[in-house]
Amino acid sequence: MTSPERAFVQAHLDDLHADLDAWLRIPSISADPAHAGDVAASAEWLAGALRRTGFPVVEIWPTPGAPAVYAEWPSADDAAPVALVYGHHDVQPVDPLELWERPPFEPTRVETLDGPELHARGAIDDKGNVAFHLLGIRAHLAATGRDTPAVTVKLLVEGEEESGSPHFADLLRERADRLACDVVVVSDTGMAAPDVPSAVVAMRGLADAEITLRGPAVDLHSGSFGGGVPNPLHAMAELLAALHDEHGRVTLPGFYDKVRPLTDRGRELMARVPFDEAAWLAGPAASRATAGEEGFSTLERIGARPTAEVNGMWGGYTGPGHKTIVPAEAHAKLTFRLVADQHPGDVGPLLRQWVDERVPEGIVAEVHTPPGGVSPCASDLDSPYTGALLRAIAQAFDTAPDDVLFTREGGSGPEADLVEVLGAPLVFLGAGLPTDRIHSPNERVLLPMLYRGAEAAAHLWRELAAR
Amino acid sequence: MTSPERAFVQAHLDDLHADLDAWLRIPSISADPAHAGDVAASAEWLAGALRRTGFPVVEIWPTPGAPAVYAEWPSADDAAPVALVYGHHDVQPVDPLELWERPPFEPTRVETLDGPELHARGAIDDKGNVAFHLLGIRAHLAATGRDTPAVTVKLLVEGEEESGSPHFADLLRERADRLACDVVVVSDTGMAAPDVPSAVVAMRGLADAEITLRGPAVDLHSGSFGGGVPNPLHAMAELLAALHDEHGRVTLPGFYDKVRPLTDRGRELMARVPFDEAAWLAGPAASRATAGEEGFSTLERIGARPTAEVNGMWGGYTGPGHKTIVPAEAHAKLTFRLVADQHPGDVGPLLRQWVDERVPEGIVAEVHTPPGGVSPCASDLDSPYTGALLRAIAQAFDTAPDDVLFTREGGSGPEADLVEVLGAPLVFLGAGLPTDRIHSPNERVLLPMLYRGAEAAAHLWRELAAR
Repeated sequence: MTSPERAFVQAHLDDLHADLDAWLRIPSISADPAHAGDVAASAEWLAGALRRTGFPVVEIWPTPGAPAVYAEWPSADDAAPVALVYGHHDVQPVDPLELWERPPFEPTRVETLDGPELHARGAIDDKGNVAFHLLGIRAHLAATGRDTPAVTVKLLVEGEEESGSPHFADLLRERADRLACDVVVVSDTGMAAPDVPSAVVAMRGLADAEITLRGPAVDLHSGSFGGGVPNPLHAMAELLAALHDEHGRVTLPGFYDKVRPLTDRGRELMARVPFDEAAWLAGPAASRATAGEEGFSTLERIGARPTAEVNGMWGGYTGPGHKTIVPAEAHAKLTFRLVADQHPGDVGPLLRQWVDERVPEGIVAEVHTPPGGVSPCASDLDSPYTGALLRAIAQAFDTAPDDVLFTREGGSGPEADLVEVLGAPLVFLGAGLPTDRIHSPNERVLLPMLYRGAEAAAHLWRELAAR
Repeated sequence: MTSPERAFVQAHLDDLHADLDAWLRIPSISADPAHAGDVAASAEWLAGALRRTGFPVVEIWPTPGAPAVYAEWPSADDAAPVALVYGHHDVQPVDPLELWERPPFEPTRVETLDGPELHARGAIDDKGNVAFHLLGIRAHLAATGRDTPAVTVKLLVEGEEESGSPHFADLLRERADRLACDVVVVSDTGMAAPDVPSAVVAMRGLADAEITLRGPAVDLHSGSFGGGVPNPLHAMAELLAALHDEHGRVTLPGFYDKVRPLTDRGRELMARVPFDEAAWLAGPAASRATAGEEGFSTLERIGARPTAEVNGMWGGYTGPGHKTIVPAEAHAKLTFRLVADQHPGDVGPLLRQWVDERVPEGIVAEVHTPPGGVSPCASDLDSPYTGALLRAIAQAFDTAPDDVLFTREGGSGPEADLVEVLGAPLVFLGAGLPTDRIHSPNERVLLPMLYRGAEAAAHLWRELAAR
């Protein structure tokens, strides 16, 4: 039996297509100042679409950077809970442009064996994930015969997520009263596979660091001085080699102290997520082998365990040919991915002390850790909101709530700010797939996933009211 | 009593200044293909200067790389020995340019407490050391009243020394007949201090290598993949950290097998060289501490022991801010300094095997070692040529031959090829100082050292004839 929500979605797919087609043509690249006007136009487009959808309150909220869009549709039921949808309307840069098979801002439908795809920058990250809510709330109203949604639905769609959300926490603090809610529905993630309905239940946090080692005051001739003075590149190699022990664990003392251990149930839930490691290596990971912390599966390593990665390293002569020097300086950029209940602010002092204890005589170390960072966040698996989410997803995928799997997102976003500032728990409803090439050329969305996203959103407002 | 050689040099210092000023303005950086035209112009300039000096034979010898300059001034005395001066007309790159106090190719005279200095890239390495011969041979002729020098003087000034002299050995083999000589006078070194006349008696050899490690096929998102796939920067750090053991020794198996041990006499002669380590650290080494192989003095470490130095290292994101990636590649440039009787050709295979044994699963290593390299070389301390050199230096410095000290040059040049191909012994006459910042920003020459170099060269032609 087809649910009335599904019937409405099926009858109105053209609306979703038309919305996405118009929105994806706006190149709202927040990282590129030349596209500031496009980011503003993207916000205006979304505000118009939300008004057309029927939201009685729609506002554009300026920030010192790109504008956010806020909308609110109060439920007529005063006792109804309040849900806040989070997403973003800015997109990643498109370079290298030559690797795109189609122009990134001319959305193109491509038929594949998996089903119809829509190719464009932002097709899923995050315009697709936001756009399905436009259809979803209409389906909810039509299916339930209501004039207002069963829960008060708020939306906050920011314009700087792909630039690190530099003004997002401030915006939340300034607008905390308007944004007050019982649950946050994050719509910026995805599912394990097209036939594997799932929900993200955790995201890793992030702390950046940069290490500078200084040896000689100037680059020295390696013939005249080599072997007699400390070489900062040698010292950097020794430092970074010591960052992990032989078990693949990060060696900063205390780094794991606040890590919430994976429970047997947590590991079991992760193990249920289908994961073809060979295909993952051959495809998205583009790697010859796995590597990482001993005693954990690949999905655990990238989703549920903290890590330290060197993102960049440089020093000395890097041009063509050879330059026989002992260089004056060595540099490295690092990011630490964090899991609940680690704090990004703890990493800087740990790293600074660790470096100071290891730096050899004659080398001076400087450790720079920018303030802030991103906190890890996680859903409460046993909360009524999670229960409502699982029921909504299960109905959209014709399965049982217990068959909706849990996944963990290794990346980091501003979601933790929502928890900290608004004090509300998170649930994640997203229609992306690991194969969607987000942040890469030829980003796409599998359209049936978007349709199911819209249906799941429609079910969710009803299920949250009935939680 | 002022020797006639000194009187002539003193009367013609302006010629030396004018020559150097013109030559140093040509940025003959052989490592940078963009400067190939400048290296050619440098050769043309030198050829013109040698013709003006009076050399009856002056030729530019092309190579597959940069051209060399050859000149010959036969002695009228058929029984006179033949001396071949070796030097080079190319210079090191100048980056980091911002650390130069004056433009590197606008030679500038700077008055200091030590005496007048000339600042420019190449001021001593090696244009200064070659230029003093232009004045020296004129002083020799004027002082002795001869039309031709007392010995047949040949000069070979190559254009690729700072790029590892890749075509020099071939050039020597092709032109061996023209270059036949009884002794080679290497003019590409220096003395222990302004008041410590000395001669180099050994030079270290050199083997270059570049290591490339490849991990993922593309840069990966460190949130989605970090902690699950091998990171080539981590692997590079581990490799380079393992290059030395805890005693400061190079860990390549067999690396030390052919090293001629330092004799007691060798160590005693080195100990006679005045060396103020604190002043060396504060000055030329510009370092906060010494470092290196256990059981050896600093002078031994930099002059008489083989070493491995990382000259450059890079990979991943090195721009402003942070980019959260697991990079696809990591790179390092290394040089190994060698001492008698090591062979540069042995290093590549040793390094390749060492890397292959250590590279972790999922990382592919490529070790590039350019063919050739530089062999170490050493003078015969008891030969009549060395005796003539010591007398020439002693006269230029108003001292006795026994007070001319022996030093070992940590740097490397193609001098060993001269020995191997031409079968002639080497002596070293150079006017550099450890404080000259060769290969570094603000290279300079102490002008009184150049003047003494010119005078010593003038004495040398007479002393060699009288040996």
